[in-house]
Amino acid sequence: MSPKTSPLETFRAIDVIRKKRDGVELSQAEIEGLVNAYTLGNIPDYQVSAWLMAVVLKGMTRPETAALTDAMLHSGDVLDLSALSARKVDKHSTGGVGDKTSLVLAPLVAAAGIAVPMISGRGLGHTGGTLDKLEAIPGFNVNLSVAEFRRVLETCGCAMIGQTAEIAPADRKLYALRDVTGTVESPYLICASIMSKKLAEGIDALVLDVKTGSGAFMKTEKDAAFLAGLMVETGERMGKKVVALITDMDQPLGNKIGNALEVIEVVEVLRGGGPEDLREICLELAAWMLHLGGVAKTVAEGRQQSVELISSGKALKKFQQMVELQGGNVGVIDDTKRLPQARHTLQVSSANAGYLASMQCEQIGTACVILGGGRERKEDSVDPAVGIVLHKKVGDRVAAGEPLATIYYNSEAQAARARQLIEASCLVTDEAPPTRRPLVHRVIQKSGEKH
Amino acid sequence: MSPKTSPLETFRAIDVIRKKRDGVELSQAEIEGLVNAYTLGNIPDYQVSAWLMAVVLKGMTRPETAALTDAMLHSGDVLDLSALSARKVDKHSTGGVGDKTSLVLAPLVAAAGIAVPMISGRGLGHTGGTLDKLEAIPGFNVNLSVAEFRRVLETCGCAMIGQTAEIAPADRKLYALRDVTGTVESPYLICASIMSKKLAEGIDALVLDVKTGSGAFMKTEKDAAFLAGLMVETGERMGKKVVALITDMDQPLGNKIGNALEVIEVVEVLRGGGPEDLREICLELAAWMLHLGGVAKTVAEGRQQSVELISSGKALKKFQQMVELQGGNVGVIDDTKRLPQARHTLQVSSANAGYLASMQCEQIGTACVILGGGRERKEDSVDPAVGIVLHKKVGDRVAAGEPLATIYYNSEAQAARARQLIEASCLVTDEAPPTRRPLVHRVIQKSGEKH
Repeated sequence: MSPKTSPLETFRAIDVIRKKRDGVELSQAEIEGLVNAYTLGNIPDYQVSAWLMAVVLKGMTRPETAALTDAMLHSGDVLDLSALSARKVDKHSTGGVGDKTSLVLAPLVAAAGIAVPMISGRGLGHTGGTLDKLEAIPGFNVNLSVAEFRRVLETCGCAMIGQTAEIAPADRKLYALRDVTGTVESPYLICASIMSKKLAEGIDALVLDVKTGSGAFMKTEKDAAFLAGLMVETGERMGKKVVALITDMDQPLGNKIGNALEVIEVVEVLRGGGPEDLREICLELAAWMLHLGGVAKTVAEGRQQSVELISSGKALKKFQQMVELQGGNVGVIDDTKRLPQARHTLQVSSANAGYLASMQCEQIGTACVILGGGRERKEDSVDPAVGIVLHKKVGDRVAAGEPLATIYYNSEAQAARARQLIEASCLVTDEAPPTRRPLVHRVIQKSGEKH
Repeated sequence: MSPKTSPLETFRAIDVIRKKRDGVELSQAEIEGLVNAYTLGNIPDYQVSAWLMAVVLKGMTRPETAALTDAMLHSGDVLDLSALSARKVDKHSTGGVGDKTSLVLAPLVAAAGIAVPMISGRGLGHTGGTLDKLEAIPGFNVNLSVAEFRRVLETCGCAMIGQTAEIAPADRKLYALRDVTGTVESPYLICASIMSKKLAEGIDALVLDVKTGSGAFMKTEKDAAFLAGLMVETGERMGKKVVALITDMDQPLGNKIGNALEVIEVVEVLRGGGPEDLREICLELAAWMLHLGGVAKTVAEGRQQSVELISSGKALKKFQQMVELQGGNVGVIDDTKRLPQARHTLQVSSANAGYLASMQCEQIGTACVILGGGRERKEDSVDPAVGIVLHKKVGDRVAAGEPLATIYYNSEAQAARARQLIEASCLVTDEAPPTRRPLVHRVIQKSGEKH
């Protein structure tokens, strides 16, 4: 098959495949050997995809998961930020609809004296991406070199870029293969993919935001908690402080979905306003980042400091500084009307009176993709101006004919399809409002320690 | 990855992979689509290997197994032997050590008026192969064209060749991939591989010889019976008469192992002699072939006819005719001393007196490979002259210093290694002889019907 495969390497790879197939625990050396050989192109795709499927169906032990994460982490460069005296803390979210917390958290936490070296991704499918939101700010450059990234980080305490070719190349290669072989859906592989990239940032601590609900990758709390526990334990095994918050994604986070619209909401929160749910999640995540970063003795203290950094305007100022350092037009922060604007708007109203009982969150995300605000395929480009503004949250009273949402669009055909999808997603019933789901379902610290 | 993959085809393949991964039954169209696209090169190896691993770990239903067999069968030519008025019956063995039954059965069953269109394989690892044994006869050509094969079959009622490029190309491609991805060990995939090739011979009925024991691929009777049941049911679903005999391979079959040595033993059996176990298995398998082929009303009658065809010399005559038609030197049948001869012999004697309690059958087969009589890798050539003659069967009394085996060799170094292995394989104890294992453990006819 592959002309690059030497008999010796084939032999080793097939041994590792067979062991995993038969449920035998792999050694660190075997996992490292497989990852390194694959990164170097010495093992063909067809052997690795068979191994990946065996991992999906047979699982991995905690030591195997840590070994895989470690091998992927060391397949490329690990940033050395030891020259920075500040503690380095990052946050990672498993992705959702309307999740713009990264844009609030990086400057907020940096304002507390913690360094936030944030390497993020783009949106795909119904979930949005941090890089796309940042690029809604005219001029904002997410493709900094490592040297530029380090300079911004040293200057203002936070910097936000996309993944570079040097960071965890094994993950890029493995992810591309998983994507076409039905081997994405494994908590062990997801854990290794996320943790290898995040730990390559050279951080001391990490706060994980694992989403659960109809708009999340992990639909059930059980699955979300399992993945969270796996990532926390893997991080701890690798000597990092890691905490995971299981947070709600059964309806979009905040009211605005779409890249420029979400930047507006970020500025609202940094100005002390914004929707309650978004503000709450940001304060909770920031509190933990400050606590793990050592500037707050308790989470409660971290929360208090975060509230003050917003009310004093320091967090907003930090955001403006970062935008400026990364080439963005800082004027749009002062006057968000100068952000890209959609040409038209359209109201989606409720046919009947009652309570908003549920929103199919994934469909709302898909409606934004249909408008051009997200990607169906990796190679699609996005329109920063389009999106959806929600006027009701689950549990709210709704009058007949009252607007549920406003669509911001540039194409009539797209708007019509998005409208249908939003109408189908929102269930208005005359029953009493359901119990509101908590914003933070659980906090998972280390094995056994649950809050 | 593969430039040949169109988005549409990738999409379909990944759906089939995901379904199998999640334990959902695949439709005939899905399995056919996958096999056809792979045979044509429209799906990359890495997708098929992920699917194969999912099959290994999730299994297949009976309809899925039949659909896979059918798709592989129809990936190439199916011989049309309808011009032959005789019933077409073949035998397939899952492989063992000293198993030369095919060379006895083809002429024996053809002598009864049944056509035996036998397409066989070569030896690999500790198991021997029919083609290698035939090629020990100087001049014997196993690479006949389909037209030549048909001519020999029409003339003498049996013909024995290797697989052609036109027969079940999907199996050849899938097997090569399974071999390097740890996906050989699945009864469903083994069943489809065997049955697709055998049914491509255009036969009406098939007798399966599924080996069990230390020298067999299926070590336990349970695994052997499962595979046998699967093949019988798959054959029946495809409108063929199929029966499987679970036979013993806990010690080598007959006394001679090695290609020319085994031809000698074949001639012995066809002359009415030969070791009892080999003769018994041949008569049992022939009896079933005659019964399924309709020339014997009962199995007992088939056995009686087989005994007579040997004692009358008709079976031997048929063998001579086939050898001649396929270019072999028929003189070596009359005088087997003219077969290739090893230069040296060496006795392996028992250190102590007692009973031969067990033989590690796989190691005896490996000893023959070490002598050069078999293959470690597909590309190795074999020495027809070398091999091992066993002087004792399990349960026999052994005196101290009495020969257990004679090694026929051409290299001292190889002989020394083979001797060590044979010594280590034979356990002589002073305990009473263990109960002899039956030669035929079970007969599996169709679902539920067991003898």
